[in-house]
Amino acid sequence: MSELRDLFNPRSIAVVGASRTPGKIGYEVLRNLIEYGYEGAIYPVNPKANEILGVKCYPSLLAIPGEVDVAIISIPAKFVPEVLEEAGKKGVKHVVIITSGFKEIGNVELENKIVEIAKRYGMRILGPNIFGYVYTPAKINATFGPRDVIPGGIAFITQSGALGIALMGMTILKGMGISAIVSVGNKADIEDADLLEFFEKDDNTKVVLIYMEGVVNGRRFVKVAAKTTLRKPVIVIKSGRTEAGAKAAASHTGALAGNVAIYMTAFQQSGVLVAKTVEEAFDWAKAFSWLPLPKGDRLVVITNGGGAGVQTTDTLAENGILLNPPPESLANEIRKFVPPFASLANPIDMTGMATEDMYYKAVRAAMENPEVDSIIILYCHTVITDPVGVASAIIRASKDAGGVTKPVVVSIIGGREAADAIKMLTQNKIPAYPTPERAASAMAAIYKYIKLREQVKLRLQQLEKL
Amino acid sequence: MSELRDLFNPRSIAVVGASRTPGKIGYEVLRNLIEYGYEGAIYPVNPKANEILGVKCYPSLLAIPGEVDVAIISIPAKFVPEVLEEAGKKGVKHVVIITSGFKEIGNVELENKIVEIAKRYGMRILGPNIFGYVYTPAKINATFGPRDVIPGGIAFITQSGALGIALMGMTILKGMGISAIVSVGNKADIEDADLLEFFEKDDNTKVVLIYMEGVVNGRRFVKVAAKTTLRKPVIVIKSGRTEAGAKAAASHTGALAGNVAIYMTAFQQSGVLVAKTVEEAFDWAKAFSWLPLPKGDRLVVITNGGGAGVQTTDTLAENGILLNPPPESLANEIRKFVPPFASLANPIDMTGMATEDMYYKAVRAAMENPEVDSIIILYCHTVITDPVGVASAIIRASKDAGGVTKPVVVSIIGGREAADAIKMLTQNKIPAYPTPERAASAMAAIYKYIKLREQVKLRLQQLEKL
Repeated sequence: MSELRDLFNPRSIAVVGASRTPGKIGYEVLRNLIEYGYEGAIYPVNPKANEILGVKCYPSLLAIPGEVDVAIISIPAKFVPEVLEEAGKKGVKHVVIITSGFKEIGNVELENKIVEIAKRYGMRILGPNIFGYVYTPAKINATFGPRDVIPGGIAFITQSGALGIALMGMTILKGMGISAIVSVGNKADIEDADLLEFFEKDDNTKVVLIYMEGVVNGRRFVKVAAKTTLRKPVIVIKSGRTEAGAKAAASHTGALAGNVAIYMTAFQQSGVLVAKTVEEAFDWAKAFSWLPLPKGDRLVVITNGGGAGVQTTDTLAENGILLNPPPESLANEIRKFVPPFASLANPIDMTGMATEDMYYKAVRAAMENPEVDSIIILYCHTVITDPVGVASAIIRASKDAGGVTKPVVVSIIGGREAADAIKMLTQNKIPAYPTPERAASAMAAIYKYIKLREQVKLRLQQLEKL
Repeated sequence: MSELRDLFNPRSIAVVGASRTPGKIGYEVLRNLIEYGYEGAIYPVNPKANEILGVKCYPSLLAIPGEVDVAIISIPAKFVPEVLEEAGKKGVKHVVIITSGFKEIGNVELENKIVEIAKRYGMRILGPNIFGYVYTPAKINATFGPRDVIPGGIAFITQSGALGIALMGMTILKGMGISAIVSVGNKADIEDADLLEFFEKDDNTKVVLIYMEGVVNGRRFVKVAAKTTLRKPVIVIKSGRTEAGAKAAASHTGALAGNVAIYMTAFQQSGVLVAKTVEEAFDWAKAFSWLPLPKGDRLVVITNGGGAGVQTTDTLAENGILLNPPPESLANEIRKFVPPFASLANPIDMTGMATEDMYYKAVRAAMENPEVDSIIILYCHTVITDPVGVASAIIRASKDAGGVTKPVVVSIIGGREAADAIKMLTQNKIPAYPTPERAASAMAAIYKYIKLREQVKLRLQQLEKL
């Protein structure tokens, strides 16, 4: 197992700097930890309190009777070294240093000092300058961010604090399932590669999403990321991917975001998917977290609006995916129930006259057809159908076809009712998007991952032969 | 005035094929027309009814006592020529043919026939094969789409029916203000250029958004679009912009989407902004509809999250916009109230410690500073602030600074509360987006428009000299 096993599956967590004052970080972290349902031992450390939120407090780490696997530290920076010494003596394995005021404000010396102490005791540091971490399989929400993170398959690593915590809220709003959220901050010790080593083997994680400004050890990142992409997709939002952005990143973290071209080559070599925007990164992650990979490239698009079909065809083509005619067996099946003027090319355009029942039949036929490998379903809200009705037809069709055995993404385009339909599909783990281009982009990412993985496989085989 | 004046400001509208049956197009169009509040005369035409929805019916167009400026036609295709003859005799100026079953299904002859009849009587045709049209200043919603279109400055022309009607719903969901929605369908007569001629002079329209698969007369489009962009921005979603997409479009409308490169040259020459996705087109249109244009290029970014700032810097750089340091007068002002470790570069990073009051002060200072031409405000939901509170601080700051006198776009990143804050800003006509990249892209579109307009101006001046 990875060295980080005890960070994500600790038997006990101490919160050093636990506070009685709502709004304080030391209070919010403790409250999230308790209320999110962590079942191991929780030890608040605060010399001035007997108990906080109903949990017994300890004056110091050393005063805690049991073993401490993880110590979360939220005290002023200058006191951190002292607490680390204590943690070391106590035999703590992982210290999660939320406190800021280190390298990111030029305080390199203090950061070096805490690294030195941790090394001396064989402790690993997450942080400093972070908002904490989440691991839903162990019911850990040790952050001062939103509480009700939805369990699921996405592991999200973020180098940015404020943006990361805000995106944490976005995952809840969008109904996205999370295995882990890890704020890495200054990466004084634990960095992306360490986390990838854990998530690669973690069966609760289906896809890893990294918001990255820079890496500490590029060579190691490439090696570990390549190994990870063989098992599951890794998506990176590389912030500071322009010279101007890199400069802005440098002024923000104190770390150089590095030469952009070098990063892009590294991502290419390790099979990492690069997302330009937060939105597309999360759109892709949602698809990967819920869908199986396709067995082949026979992609079928089903629509009730020609325009939505054209936009999808364009987006796919821009991503190197050209649609072939649908299998004859599928066209023959669908011909039976669609209007005579429907188009049985690809996209299959059932026309604006398409009913909820036609959606049911078409989706089920495509799901069950062995000559179809993947499906994009587009629906424009028309006066003769109800978006929630169409969503429920799609869900029923998938169930009746034996489950989502091939990747399917949906776009439901319209107003309030369309938003409700997207929510319904989301709850049923069918990735749904408000525009056709976003659905197409998610499907394209799936095929791109397969291609990248193939290239990584080949490269590793060639390296072995040398 | 443009020839289409009476289409958008008719004194009377007849609905031929008005129906008593809810769900039928002839019912839905009439109901929308009545309930959206059109104040001119409404004449339902149906030989089998005395009244529908409380409005007196007429057996034919010729039986209507008063003049008819617009006749909306929703009867089977084969009966359309006959009704057009009647309309011609009645002196109808514009016929809006909702009916489908013409060129789009290969029925070219029937389409030629209706064009011939209309020409003979000097009538203009909108359609056929459309969902109707909306013009909010005249309280006209003559569509079978959603009813409660929000009045505002965006004119939306769509060649796609199902997609167009679905996007109509989306504008309501997103709180976007509409001057007109025009479904152009087969463009048998009225095409984009005719509509641009009207919208160019229409003071209710601030920006024109076109979903286009192809144009009938490219040369005329370029000429009219160039003239329009001198007065207001024109955004085009060119569907069928890849060879594969163009083929899909051809099978959908029966019209060739044409050579992609030729279109792109035409758009460039006419100063049209090309959007790749529905989402970015609407994001840009929202900004143009509410904001003044900037007087110069001194753009300032204000954030509480470094990461959001970097993503914005990247997106701007990718659009050719490089940020300069903020004016010293602004930096000095903001320095007074932000934490000491805040960054007064550009982006101005007030850090995660930024309060609602700091947002108020910073936004007001930037709004009032004569050395600032435009502002991007980024906010990541943090534990110490409330997104709605920040939104309200931004709104108050703009008001107290004398209104939105320079372009300002906002990104509010987070969960449910962030969505509420975006709604609040939207209601106050401040464009707000859920991710930093979308806000940056909207601001970049504003600067791109100014540049394109300058190029068009130069080209027209050179042509005059020849």
